[in-house]
Amino acid sequence: MIDGRTEKRVDDSRTVMTEMIMPNDTNPLNNLMGGNLMRWMDVAGGICAGRHAGQHVVTASVDHVSFSSAIKVGDVITIQAQLTRAWGTSMEVYMEVFAADARGRDHRKANHAYMTFVALDEKTMKPTSVPSLIPLTSQEEELYKSAARRREIRLILSGRLQASEAKEVKEFFSAMK
Amino acid sequence: MIDGRTEKRVDDSRTVMTEMIMPNDTNPLNNLMGGNLMRWMDVAGGICAGRHAGQHVVTASVDHVSFSSAIKVGDVITIQAQLTRAWGTSMEVYMEVFAADARGRDHRKANHAYMTFVALDEKTMKPTSVPSLIPLTSQEEELYKSAARRREIRLILSGRLQASEAKEVKEFFSAMK
Amino acid sequence: MIDGRTEKRVDDSRTVMTEMIMPNDTNPLNNLMGGNLMRWMDVAGGICAGRHAGQHVVTASVDHVSFSSAIKVGDVITIQAQLTRAWGTSMEVYMEVFAADARGRDHRKANHAYMTFVALDEKTMKPTSVPSLIPLTSQEEELYKSAARRREIRLILSGRLQASEAKEVKEFFSAMK
Amino acid sequence: MIDGRTEKRVDDSRTVMTEMIMPNDTNPLNNLMGGNLMRWMDVAGGICAGRHAGQHVVTASVDHVSFSSAIKVGDVITIQAQLTRAWGTSMEVYMEVFAADARGRDHRKANHAYMTFVALDEKTMKPTSVPSLIPLTSQEEELYKSAARRREIRLILSGRLQASEAKEVKEFFSAMK
Amino acid sequence: MIDGRTEKRVDDSRTVMTEMIMPNDTNPLNNLMGGNLMRWMDVAGGICAGRHAGQHVVTASVDHVSFSSAIKVGDVITIQAQLTRAWGTSMEVYMEVFAADARGRDHRKANHAYMTFVALDEKTMKPTSVPSLIPLTSQEEELYKSAARRREIRLILSGRLQASEAKEVKEFFSAMK
Amino acid sequence: MIDGRTEKRVDDSRTVMTEMIMPNDTNPLNNLMGGNLMRWMDVAGGICAGRHAGQHVVTASVDHVSFSSAIKVGDVITIQAQLTRAWGTSMEVYMEVFAADARGRDHRKANHAYMTFVALDEKTMKPTSVPSLIPLTSQEEELYKSAARRREIRLILSGRLQASEAKEVKEFFSAMK
Repeated sequence: MIDGRTEKRVDDSRTVMTEMIMPNDTNPLNNLMGGNLMRWMDVAGGICAGRHAGQHVVTASVDHVSFSSAIKVGDVITIQAQLTRAWGTSMEVYMEVFAADARGRDHRKANHAYMTFVALDEKTMKPTSVPSLIPLTSQEEELYKSAARRREIRLILSGRLQASEAKEVKEFFSAMK
Repeated sequence: MIDGRTEKRVDDSRTVMTEMIMPNDTNPLNNLMGGNLMRWMDVAGGICAGRHAGQHVVTASVDHVSFSSAIKVGDVITIQAQLTRAWGTSMEVYMEVFAADARGRDHRKANHAYMTFVALDEKTMKPTSVPSLIPLTSQEEELYKSAARRREIRLILSGRLQASEAKEVKEFFSAMK
Repeated sequence: MIDGRTEKRVDDSRTVMTEMIMPNDTNPLNNLMGGNLMRWMDVAGGICAGRHAGQHVVTASVDHVSFSSAIKVGDVITIQAQLTRAWGTSMEVYMEVFAADARGRDHRKANHAYMTFVALDEKTMKPTSVPSLIPLTSQEEELYKSAARRREIRLILSGRLQASEAKEVKEFFSAMK
Repeated sequence: MIDGRTEKRVDDSRTVMTEMIMPNDTNPLNNLMGGNLMRWMDVAGGICAGRHAGQHVVTASVDHVSFSSAIKVGDVITIQAQLTRAWGTSMEVYMEVFAADARGRDHRKANHAYMTFVALDEKTMKPTSVPSLIPLTSQEEELYKSAARRREIRLILSGRLQASEAKEVKEFFSAMK
Repeated sequence: MIDGRTEKRVDDSRTVMTEMIMPNDTNPLNNLMGGNLMRWMDVAGGICAGRHAGQHVVTASVDHVSFSSAIKVGDVITIQAQLTRAWGTSMEVYMEVFAADARGRDHRKANHAYMTFVALDEKTMKPTSVPSLIPLTSQEEELYKSAARRREIRLILSGRLQASEAKEVKEFFSAMK
Repeated sequence: MIDGRTEKRVDDSRTVMTEMIMPNDTNPLNNLMGGNLMRWMDVAGGICAGRHAGQHVVTASVDHVSFSSAIKVGDVITIQAQLTRAWGTSMEVYMEVFAADARGRDHRKANHAYMTFVALDEKTMKPTSVPSLIPLTSQEEELYKSAARRREIRLILSGRLQASEAKEVKEFFSAMK
């Protein structure tokens, strides 16, 4: 932890990235390729996590992502990344992607995703602890709380937690409609 | 469906992509950025799905992906993509990523992921049906069978299926260790 | 003018772009090359002007830019672009560039610039009129007012106005310390 | 100063760069984006200044640039860069940009600009002195002479010189038509 | 030589690269530019040679290459690289390029080429010896045998062998139809 | 043929390209990759041939190329391309590549190559005739004369001419030392 801070707020690391879709970012149908969007989300999320950690970070995982809205060449996308929670050496970042055409018209939500990052010490290249996150608004509180459930699912999917022990996930499945 | 074929085998669309990690693909710690790997996986998966469909395809979703093994600048990665199953107009592709250094040493599995793609008719830009997949080997059979479970999880995660109705997923959670 | 609006506020088009400096963006001394920074500023400014105009825009000019602070590979830059004023078919955008290292440390102002853009009608490819700008805050008012002086200087530099007729510029030169 | 030379001629560092406009260099209207042109001009100018200095150089400033002629995808641009003058550790480079289509037709002047560069010692990373420039032709003499005026304007614009003390600039404003 | 092996088989280094043609890879007629294809072939060949050598490699030469089949934006190319023979510190790689459209249709051979690479010791940066190649199939035997002739031609073309002493080449010219 | 000209001189299409080697252009040993150099040579040669033809051109072939001099990241290369001869619808271009470091030191010839291009009519996409070349200097005459021999070798290598009928090549092999 740098500068003696053991706690940070969401606004301390909030990151906004804006990109214009260039021809090479698209497939033969002139739609933004999903992989290119994920590359930008990874950069935006990494910058956000790095600002919170005050350390270098590496991507640990990406949760399930759906691509619904076609984004065309010339469109402008805005990625809004915010930290949801930190645990020891790892952090979860929530990202929303908005798209509009080059003239600022047809504004729409295109996507969202959760990614996790781990802080690394530059010298030892080992994970290093990061400040806790203090949620303030109700949206920040909601993301903070639901992060526990998403973390359990990741642990199950990577085989480090048995489904039967995942109490947050049980609630998740029973609560879904 | 082109050329009158309503069924194809896994080998008809198997795709191998090899890339050398260039400086711009890495973060300040000289590790391949997760987002760049996902971009290549998206291209490899899309080519594989396009070969099966005989149509243009777009990315529909990416399942949870973990990044464990650090991949360095100069390393060579090999992405092996194979179709696991097709449903109507959509397809699931399984990808394994292997890494080695520039001299072919330190060969290791780096990653794996499942992505789904939808075939689009070039004129109407609407989803169009694709051939069924015929699994032959036991590995192909296993991936074919488990694809049903992964599909259910995707439907739950996107709110199109209630967890209580997901019979494959129930089996998945009870069977995990 | 789209959607019947003949006036817009600064916040309607404010644009934030965040980029991480990759190896290919730097010179052999590992500093961000000035031309790469100007390329990003041009994209950010063009998106901002396009949002105000509700039309496609092209770059008309860049005012004098100085590069003082060295920006290193791995650093993160944030470009904040805001409209200062609109005249008929052209707009002036003010941009400030901030830099920090990959860990969010060493935050500093790196740069600023004024660029002008012209809105083009997509069909005729001719300049087309844009909404007026309504400045609200005192910073917005100050930029709005000084835009007249910068416009005169541009007209002089491009030979379309005689220095002797440039009343705003006279004030500028006499007021400078 | 390397190789004992304290003076160089313009031809010792003259630089010609030719580029074909690729799709990713253009905006949604298929015009070369102004920022991409400035990126190439920065590279060409930096190579020219590096050849004169016999040292690494960094961009110090770009004077006002106007973009008048639309340059299309597939067009070929030629940037001709030449040193105009050197002062201690800094140099001014003049660049003219010509454009033609891919078949060598429609040849036209597209642009011109002045940029300044500073030579840096590779070890100390401090500014280091460069050879003087010896203008030979009348065009070289004219650029050499007018460089003093442009330098004064830059010093005024960056607040390091009072307008009232700028004797070259006074002449400039009174001489313009 | 690493890992004590002084001989390797063709399959030990066989390399498959798959790429989708993006807009920036094409000329104004929307055809893949020949130079871009050669860049990919160089990367594929270098990975193949590096796998055989177990060392870093650099490109030594490219034999005559013809470009006959137009490859369009959106097409998918597959480069198959295999070692043909090794001599001391150098290796010859044979590459075949196949193309198909984005839907896997119109599959055709686009190209082939022979390139040579030299293994370099990472510390001394001097050429270092590589394992011998053991051809197994009749295709591998044929490429192994004809490699001697191609090597003679290269030595003649680079002035290191007199045509009159090139016994393999004499046979080549008399045998051609 | 445009503008009624059926003959052009070498200087009408001479092309100079200057590029700085960026990190992504190099292999893990920090040397410019051979394939990247060939990509630039292809662009420079195509611009040169396009200027002579007054038409769009595509690459037809590259003659044998050797890579001898290591070119490092930060080095500056200059490609000088000139037409040697034209036959009906095709043209041969000769290119010399020079390299120096970023400070203009260590100037050396790095490479040379011959490439052929074919002019295409934009509408029919069929080969279209180009102006003849008029060599003036003795260097231009020499390249013009030897072009016939290189053309014969290409026809032999592509199986369109029998070696026994290649009278220029016979002279070539007997004249070499």
